[in-house]
Amino acid sequence: DILERPEGLELGGDLRRVTIMMSDIRSFTTLSEQLEPAQVVTLINRYLAAMTDIIMAYNGTIDEFIGDAILAVFGAPQRRDDDADRAVQCALDMQAAMEEINRLNREDGLPEISTGIALNTGDVIAGNIGSERRSKYGFVGHPMNVTSRIEDVTAGGEILISESTLQSLKPGYRIGDSQELKVKGIDELLRVHHILEAAP
Amino acid sequence: DILERPEGLELGGDLRRVTIMMSDIRSFTTLSEQLEPAQVVTLINRYLAAMTDIIMAYNGTIDEFIGDAILAVFGAPQRRDDDADRAVQCALDMQAAMEEINRLNREDGLPEISTGIALNTGDVIAGNIGSERRSKYGFVGHPMNVTSRIEDVTAGGEILISESTLQSLKPGYRIGDSQELKVKGIDELLRVHHILEAAP
Repeated sequence: DILERPEGLELGGDLRRVTIMMSDIRSFTTLSEQLEPAQVVTLINRYLAAMTDIIMAYNGTIDEFIGDAILAVFGAPQRRDDDADRAVQCALDMQAAMEEINRLNREDGLPEISTGIALNTGDVIAGNIGSERRSKYGFVGHPMNVTSRIEDVTAGGEILISESTLQSLKPGYRIGDSQELKVKGIDELLRVHHILEAAP
Repeated sequence: DILERPEGLELGGDLRRVTIMMSDIRSFTTLSEQLEPAQVVTLINRYLAAMTDIIMAYNGTIDEFIGDAILAVFGAPQRRDDDADRAVQCALDMQAAMEEINRLNREDGLPEISTGIALNTGDVIAGNIGSERRSKYGFVGHPMNVTSRIEDVTAGGEILISESTLQSLKPGYRIGDSQELKVKGIDELLRVHHILEAAP
């Protein structure tokens, strides 16, 4: 695992163009209050296990699980020309996988869940963040905050991508409605787009 | 490290009363845009190293570094009677440590920074979150979201604690102004208090 043996890579802090993914189970906290703690962990872990497999299959780097939220990047530590495309295809596969997850949930008497996925592309500082006692390969920069803001408005079952991610994609995706967001610390409105389908 | 060898503890998902800490360097993203990537990593790591040492000295459990933000809990995996008190004393020490951090920053030609620290006490589900390929000891529940909301309004140099944390403290702290917050998903306003000083 390249993240475990950083000596082969420049991890001291460099500026990287990445596509950032944030996903979140809609209303999970409220849902979790109606369940036993062990059920909550079963539900969240079934979901995270499936999502982890898909993200890794697309060479995404999982930065964090934060409760039920996932933060991942495409393009660091290794950049590839199709980082944005892989991120979008990954998000489409993640949404498609929810059907099977909910089938298993119904079998186990657990509630159905839905996830919202936000993607944004921009330059971030990537490096080993932390101390000698505890460190991780992590990311800093406005594009991280912007992704979080997009995720805030993403409904269950949706994939919302920023204009910068759209511009980074190869042609052929089916794009749905777009909308404009106000983001703290940024003067212009941010345009985001629904991704409906991959190139045929 | 107890978190590395979970077999000795019940980590399958149980409800725990914990005091949650979130801290954040104010305007760090904007600050970081005026610096070289290596300087950003130097700045953030000096800060995180100092904060990690203090949090560990108070037996806090660091859940995550998320960029420059720190998420820690007091009371899991091990509960102690003074979880809330240790969290507050830890926060006071963290704020006190900023002076030395900024002295070193000035020496290195780096900008001064300030941190805001939010504390909240409540019942969360704690357990091993993730998959076989990647898991961590993590936390789920409304008190996590509430802490994040308090952190949003905490200014540099401040410590804001929720009413529930205040009620969990032993007497003797010097408390400053209080204010009320609207939190998504919660009907009543949330009362938060400034902590100014520990018991003499």
